[in-house]
Amino acid sequence: PQSFDFNHHSHRRFNPLTHSWVLCSPHRTQRPWQGNLTKRPSYDPDCYLCPTNTRANGAHLQNPDYNHTFVFENDFPAVQQNQPVLVLAGDSQDTNPLLQVESVRGQCHVICFSPQHDKTLADMTESEIVPVIDAWISTYKAMEKQDHINHVQIFENKGAIMGCSNPHPHGQVWSTEDIPQETAVELENMAKYRQRYKRCMLCDYVKTETDADRKAKADGSALLSSMENGVNKACSSSLHSVPLAGSDPTPPTTPTSNTFPSTAMKSRVTPDGSRIVCENASFICLVPFWATWPFETMVLSRAHLARLSDMTEFQKQDLANILRRITCRYDNLFRCSFPYSMGVHQSPTNENASHQELSHLHLHFYPPLLRSATVKKFLVGFELLGQSQRDLTPEQAAKRLTDCSEIHYKSGV
Amino acid sequence: PQSFDFNHHSHRRFNPLTHSWVLCSPHRTQRPWQGNLTKRPSYDPDCYLCPTNTRANGAHLQNPDYNHTFVFENDFPAVQQNQPVLVLAGDSQDTNPLLQVESVRGQCHVICFSPQHDKTLADMTESEIVPVIDAWISTYKAMEKQDHINHVQIFENKGAIMGCSNPHPHGQVWSTEDIPQETAVELENMAKYRQRYKRCMLCDYVKTETDADRKAKADGSALLSSMENGVNKACSSSLHSVPLAGSDPTPPTTPTSNTFPSTAMKSRVTPDGSRIVCENASFICLVPFWATWPFETMVLSRAHLARLSDMTEFQKQDLANILRRITCRYDNLFRCSFPYSMGVHQSPTNENASHQELSHLHLHFYPPLLRSATVKKFLVGFELLGQSQRDLTPEQAAKRLTDCSEIHYKSGV
Ligand SMILES: O=P(O)(O)O[C@H]1O[C@H](CO)[C@@H](O)[C@H](O)[C@H]1O
Ligand SMILES: O=P(O)(O)O[C@H]1O[C@H](CO)[C@@H](O)[C@H](O)[C@H]1O
Repeated sequence: PQSFDFNHHSHRRFNPLTHSWVLCSPHRTQRPWQGNLTKRPSYDPDCYLCPTNTRANGAHLQNPDYNHTFVFENDFPAVQQNQPVLVLAGDSQDTNPLLQVESVRGQCHVICFSPQHDKTLADMTESEIVPVIDAWISTYKAMEKQDHINHVQIFENKGAIMGCSNPHPHGQVWSTEDIPQETAVELENMAKYRQRYKRCMLCDYVKTETDADRKAKADGSALLSSMENGVNKACSSSLHSVPLAGSDPTPPTTPTSNTFPSTAMKSRVTPDGSRIVCENASFICLVPFWATWPFETMVLSRAHLARLSDMTEFQKQDLANILRRITCRYDNLFRCSFPYSMGVHQSPTNENASHQELSHLHLHFYPPLLRSATVKKFLVGFELLGQSQRDLTPEQAAKRLTDCSEIHYKSGV
Repeated sequence: PQSFDFNHHSHRRFNPLTHSWVLCSPHRTQRPWQGNLTKRPSYDPDCYLCPTNTRANGAHLQNPDYNHTFVFENDFPAVQQNQPVLVLAGDSQDTNPLLQVESVRGQCHVICFSPQHDKTLADMTESEIVPVIDAWISTYKAMEKQDHINHVQIFENKGAIMGCSNPHPHGQVWSTEDIPQETAVELENMAKYRQRYKRCMLCDYVKTETDADRKAKADGSALLSSMENGVNKACSSSLHSVPLAGSDPTPPTTPTSNTFPSTAMKSRVTPDGSRIVCENASFICLVPFWATWPFETMVLSRAHLARLSDMTEFQKQDLANILRRITCRYDNLFRCSFPYSMGVHQSPTNENASHQELSHLHLHFYPPLLRSATVKKFLVGFELLGQSQRDLTPEQAAKRLTDCSEIHYKSGV
């Protein structure tokens, strides 16, 4: 049998300095780049993803004449199903802890969101977005059945600035043998939180943010009515210095162990203002308290759902609703097709019961723009070597997004 | 006294999902952007950093007519010295663990590397680079004396693609009250390693890589002499399948505790080939086994030095030598002024004795280019949501860099 070859087979390597893994896909040959197709007709005869066109892999595969979504295996996958097994050490005696490597098998899919080349989630209707969610769910379920798959990462890169290699509306799904770094770390921290507080971190976070939002609105109307009553500015602004989470906290139950990381210097005061951008019965969309990207948002399920496939029909409609509304607000912010990387965090597909229990369905949006359609935030020097850094506060970013309309600037309404 | 204002004062916030901090600098007003100055005369009257020119802060400060380096306080600092103290909770009872925030005071400096607008480290001589290292050391020492400073991050963003806002050769120094995320994590992992193996992780790593390099060279010359002896290809290639670190490891001493993270599936085999790009008596420069960026490198001191200021004169010359050689190789790789973020990791300036003991001087280079002067690697979708990903192997990247000349392509030699 063929033996494992580090120059051809996917594997991941361990960084002992940062305690994190990096996936290495040496077989991934020159992928085609169509990110600079700038004309956006509704059908582009040169696009590899439009219905009926021929794909990029040289095998003369033709796309079907699809109506809603279209799922196929990536022609240039970062992980592959059929690769030899990596021979592992039986004992740890003769291995170097600084040279740790693991084989990573997997499968990569592409999901076209719409047959129309010129659409994006931001200008699709909610009933057009539902089939996208259905495609995410069916791909996850198909991968769940595969023995060698333990995790399914659904994501979208939108815009050439975010490395998207083709403007046709599409996302990707990378299903892997390993639990990728980010998910593994989130699960670890959620486990420590649950151990200490006996509750789900993200259930608590939803409550924290809805409380802060209520408080901000109450302060806002108190401010408004006090101004209506002719109370002067100096007085009303003191309303704003009332500590938010300090006076109205989600009181943690008495710590039972100190495994959940906390710092010596916790603040009694937290910034004023709401971080919620939009919400409905099933989901809230907010700029997290700890956002890194200028207009980063997170979509959280109000209910403790482990995965997309646990949603009811009603919740699925609500997710489509939130996705349309946040992507529309993004486009309206700088009146451009707003670039981002977006993805779903949900339960791994492995059989680890604690993973199922811990997972709380959420999506992250990481958009790079800072000040305009062309000025982005660079996460470079200090950020790479020291610490992530942002300029405007998350509350300021939430306010900007809250002020945007949910009617698309191009819709001509 | 003025009270702490989240809309104006630097602070950091804790991300409980990823267990990491983000620095927030809301006061950082519109910094000027000169990243797109493309003409590169040796003196540019419009440049804020050239000798004798007026700076960008509106205070009509004039640069001196400097000859080597020039250090000044950043006109648009991300952290500031004079800001009010953030009132902290005495007990942890009424604080929300999901809304953790800390005040961050600090100071930001800019270091011009040369009076000549059109130079970079890659085309400076070693004796021109020594004053840059001296400026790093004197800035570190000045900050070391400040009570409110615990860490000094020296870095350079090179190229507009890396967010560098001015092409004049310069770097930055951000000195902060906190130990930034990356350094804190490195120190934590180095502490666990030391506890388990009773040795310094990076001293061990230097030995691991020099051993692997020796082995690769021996294999290479064995291969060469066997070919000279007419032995056929099939036979010689089996030489290459001899496991490197498996057969010639740095044997870890018997584990005394399991605090150093290790995985169940360690590999007995590791990739063939050297990862060392260039070296001298005091430093080695290599593509780390776990590199994320395509042509990422790390410069490690052979001796266990805690900080730049611990170097002898000889070691300082050697660091200048390595910096010139690696930046020159970078420029030669795609025959362009090679962009990167680069920075120094050394001991924090706080009085923590264990930090001093653990720290092992090293520099990281994070360059974004992948295939040419214009095709970069995007660390987006899967990378942000799942795990870092790379295409070519670190050994292949090292080989490409090793094949580059150390004479600059523009030097006309
Ligand atoms: O300080 P500069 O050069 O204006 O800014 C650059 O470096 C900083 C530190 O890495 C980054 O925060 C900025 O995004 C980048 O544009
Ligand atoms: O697969 P694509 O769209 O060709 O490639 C894009 O997404 C991938 C997954 O985030 C990244 O690794 C690539 O750098 C990016 O260009």
